[in-house]
Amino acid sequence: MSEIRIGEYLFRRLKQMGIETAFGVPGDYELALLNYVEPAGLSWIGTPNELVGSYAADGYARLKGAAALVTTFGPGELSALCGLGGSFCEMVPVLHIVGYPSFAAQASGQILHHTLGDKSYDHYVRMSSELSCATTVLKDPGNATAEIDRVLNAIMYHSQPGYIGITEDVVKTLVPTASLNSTLIKMTLPPGTEDDRALAAIMAALEASKNPIIIVDGGAGRSSWAPHAIELIRVLKSLHFNTVMGKGVVGEDDPLFAGCYAGVGSSLATSKAVEESDCILWLGHMPSDFNTGMFTEHIKSSIVIDFQRFHITVGQKQFQARMNTVLPRLSQSIKSSSILSQRIPPAPVAYLSQISAEIPTSMITQAWLWPRLSSFVKPGDIIVAETGTSQIGAVSTKMPQGVYYWTQAVWGSIGYAIGAAVGATIAGKELGQYRRMIVFTGEGSLQLTVQAMSILNRHGVVPYVFILNNNGYTVERYFEGWDAAYNDVPDWDYGGLFRSFAPNLTTNTFKARTAAELDKLLSEDSFQNATVPQCIDMALDKYDAPEGLTAIFDFKKKMAGA
Amino acid sequence: MSEIRIGEYLFRRLKQMGIETAFGVPGDYELALLNYVEPAGLSWIGTPNELVGSYAADGYARLKGAAALVTTFGPGELSALCGLGGSFCEMVPVLHIVGYPSFAAQASGQILHHTLGDKSYDHYVRMSSELSCATTVLKDPGNATAEIDRVLNAIMYHSQPGYIGITEDVVKTLVPTASLNSTLIKMTLPPGTEDDRALAAIMAALEASKNPIIIVDGGAGRSSWAPHAIELIRVLKSLHFNTVMGKGVVGEDDPLFAGCYAGVGSSLATSKAVEESDCILWLGHMPSDFNTGMFTEHIKSSIVIDFQRFHITVGQKQFQARMNTVLPRLSQSIKSSSILSQRIPPAPVAYLSQISAEIPTSMITQAWLWPRLSSFVKPGDIIVAETGTSQIGAVSTKMPQGVYYWTQAVWGSIGYAIGAAVGATIAGKELGQYRRMIVFTGEGSLQLTVQAMSILNRHGVVPYVFILNNNGYTVERYFEGWDAAYNDVPDWDYGGLFRSFAPNLTTNTFKARTAAELDKLLSEDSFQNATVPQCIDMALDKYDAPEGLTAIFDFKKKMAGA
Repeated sequence: MSEIRIGEYLFRRLKQMGIETAFGVPGDYELALLNYVEPAGLSWIGTPNELVGSYAADGYARLKGAAALVTTFGPGELSALCGLGGSFCEMVPVLHIVGYPSFAAQASGQILHHTLGDKSYDHYVRMSSELSCATTVLKDPGNATAEIDRVLNAIMYHSQPGYIGITEDVVKTLVPTASLNSTLIKMTLPPGTEDDRALAAIMAALEASKNPIIIVDGGAGRSSWAPHAIELIRVLKSLHFNTVMGKGVVGEDDPLFAGCYAGVGSSLATSKAVEESDCILWLGHMPSDFNTGMFTEHIKSSIVIDFQRFHITVGQKQFQARMNTVLPRLSQSIKSSSILSQRIPPAPVAYLSQISAEIPTSMITQAWLWPRLSSFVKPGDIIVAETGTSQIGAVSTKMPQGVYYWTQAVWGSIGYAIGAAVGATIAGKELGQYRRMIVFTGEGSLQLTVQAMSILNRHGVVPYVFILNNNGYTVERYFEGWDAAYNDVPDWDYGGLFRSFAPNLTTNTFKARTAAELDKLLSEDSFQNATVPQCIDMALDKYDAPEGLTAIFDFKKKMAGA
Repeated sequence: MSEIRIGEYLFRRLKQMGIETAFGVPGDYELALLNYVEPAGLSWIGTPNELVGSYAADGYARLKGAAALVTTFGPGELSALCGLGGSFCEMVPVLHIVGYPSFAAQASGQILHHTLGDKSYDHYVRMSSELSCATTVLKDPGNATAEIDRVLNAIMYHSQPGYIGITEDVVKTLVPTASLNSTLIKMTLPPGTEDDRALAAIMAALEASKNPIIIVDGGAGRSSWAPHAIELIRVLKSLHFNTVMGKGVVGEDDPLFAGCYAGVGSSLATSKAVEESDCILWLGHMPSDFNTGMFTEHIKSSIVIDFQRFHITVGQKQFQARMNTVLPRLSQSIKSSSILSQRIPPAPVAYLSQISAEIPTSMITQAWLWPRLSSFVKPGDIIVAETGTSQIGAVSTKMPQGVYYWTQAVWGSIGYAIGAAVGATIAGKELGQYRRMIVFTGEGSLQLTVQAMSILNRHGVVPYVFILNNNGYTVERYFEGWDAAYNDVPDWDYGGLFRSFAPNLTTNTFKARTAAELDKLLSEDSFQNATVPQCIDMALDKYDAPEGLTAIFDFKKKMAGA
């Protein structure tokens, strides 16, 4: 009987799932494990620290469907928890593999480094279990492959992180190679038990509707359902919208796309069109604060058809039905129905009309910046916007089909964007259909994970790092501490950092002090089609914020005063 | 009745404990809390990220006795867990204060950012409870001051981290100002119930001993017992030693100091002197792997008197006695006894004799570097050595009395040193007795937390960052993967980074390619007495390691082969 080491089994399983790169930071308890990465056909990308590694894995998984992060017991794994929490709440399947001290060393009763000094080895897996859909620490070679498969199936089923701990001794034990032949669940979930009933209820609602709309939201793993959403939009010929978290799934270069809906944070034309509809097909509704203009949406739940990963709600009625199986069937049903013929086709909505195209004479403003970027953005771009003003501002940048765009709207961890870009860059290279990796981030956010720049610069897809340099945490100022020193950050030379993180590479760095300077740069062919990493340090006023943000705070103030 | 906001109460309590600075990263749930830092008389030091903040708090607490770290709910607090785990196992009291969403928002049933999206608010405190001696999330203003005091007392009693969560609404509620008048336990622990019996047993052991020795180790909080250790050494007139973790508590510029004991990792003269003793007064024995030459100590436990924070063991007998109350009484007892007159005074031990003072003609070697630094190090220096070859190598640098030196020998988290230096620098400035902050770190370790450089440069005590630049994780190569790519790290321009993190400050950066270049620099008066930050990028061979490390691996190999 052919046999294989458990370490190699694990990485071969990942390879079957489409994972071609593992991320992480080496540590002595995990080194034995790392010896199996390349023999299993994966590449290893060491990241400067574990937080960057966890963000990179998240970014990679968003494009490729799943990712793996390898860290060492104790300090290493704990440093990754913030990133994994983000993957958990944003439904990104990342497998966290942790190298443990051997059971022989654990049994010795001695105090090992990376422990809490109390000879206990289960603190950390308990901590990770709060952020994981499944955990295991492999003990018995007899059930190791079953345990690995259980965790892998769980992360794909729930689209959330899982945790596998492997000791230095167990990693080398042999298991039957044939275990690799069983099929993992992967992304194809079985149909729901009430798919038929849900579909009938949706069709009935559509037949009764005069102006149905579609909102593409972020509440479910996106890899398998984006094509279904695009097909539904093509078939229904209704107005369609996205949200902060759903933006980037469906291209905005469509005459019936009518803006990003975020309550009072939306353009007036967008919110009017959404709030006047009598039937909303809401794909993966995620009613979190940052995704709803701080809960300023104004919609009756009775007109909403909410499609989720594990259920579909039509008005008040919830069905055990699945978005990924019902959506394609819904498109088919619409095509063979008379719904379209009964309905007046909607007119396009001028949802961006209020924004001026004029170039400010002095400093860059967010009101100018984000619409200006619409002509810079192109199919073949991967784009990530950091939490804060970038997340809200990027709503006003038009993202065409063929762009992979996202932002972390629920977890909202500052420092995420540049780290996630590392993984997305590598995923983009593996997928072969992406050319540029564009990051929008604030300098306050960038300071948390600035060393990610070093890895971003080395993997094929050309990075563009746009830094909104506005003397601190501008979005925080809107919450509290308008002028407080705690919202300031020290001044850094970002261009100097960018160059110093990659002294052996050619890089271009720019300082844009005015909108005119930036406009000129964005217009240059050599910049648009750059082949080396680009860093753009943009000076903005510390109080300047996108209209989507100021509108919400103005509204909140008005409500509080009323 | 005079009243005070809970937020201010908390920071005033910290001030009473001698904490003058709070560290952290702002986040919206915590901003209301930050408004009370300065009114309570504390300074706020924002750190580039939470991991650096947690290391900074640890470094500050080591010098000042306690520290405070403030982060925001979710991503912020989780990013600090690695640092707090280190404080837990190394017995450093750090209070982690976490700003929570208001109870009103929690009760709304809406999905808030920084949550896991499941409307549950107790995941993170459960995670932190694994690394804390006490936790609370303040709910009831009626018992809030009692809860705060309970956690503060616990962290000082156990000398470990504690966790206080405060919601945005509770932070502003009023409590009686008079609550500030009760006394906290602080560092003065009450005597043990068996102090007398322990003392008698120790004296009996000393009377029977021909050559007692003292080993100063790291197993207890050091702030209160260092003076007692120094007094005992002065009184007993025996040979004394330290360990990797105990180094830095007692000065090594004493004729009876005889080296750092780490089993086969020690110099031969040191291990001979320790292992020939018939009675070892071991102050805070911490038998962890990195602190014992990977468990190669060779000592009969029957001759050990082990002094710990909460018990003392004489041979096999454990007493409910306290190091901090028994130690000063022991010095008194020895003075009034005839022990000394019965004993032949020990001869000094030439524990460093095997190390050559010759300057290598080409590259810097660790064998040359660490002894060479002995003449550079001076009273008034704070010195931290990173885990890895720095930690082991620095054993060979003589640290005189008046130097505050330490290394993280149990937790062993790479990236710690530069972050801890941030806090130590500020503590050193507050204490007023320190002039230079010297960091020894490897470039692989520095990459994890390099942004700490930015804060290190701004607070009075002059930083010297010595980087052992040796193409990757050299210490890992000794464990596994001698030539493996996963042990390499990308090349950075460290001088360029150092300057770019503080573009508005004057800094000096050096590249030392040879031992002669470094020797010249170390000899220069302008370098020794620098008034601006210094960064020294030192090129070392990737396989070069201190003798203390190679000796252990040679021994392990011999044992495995035998």
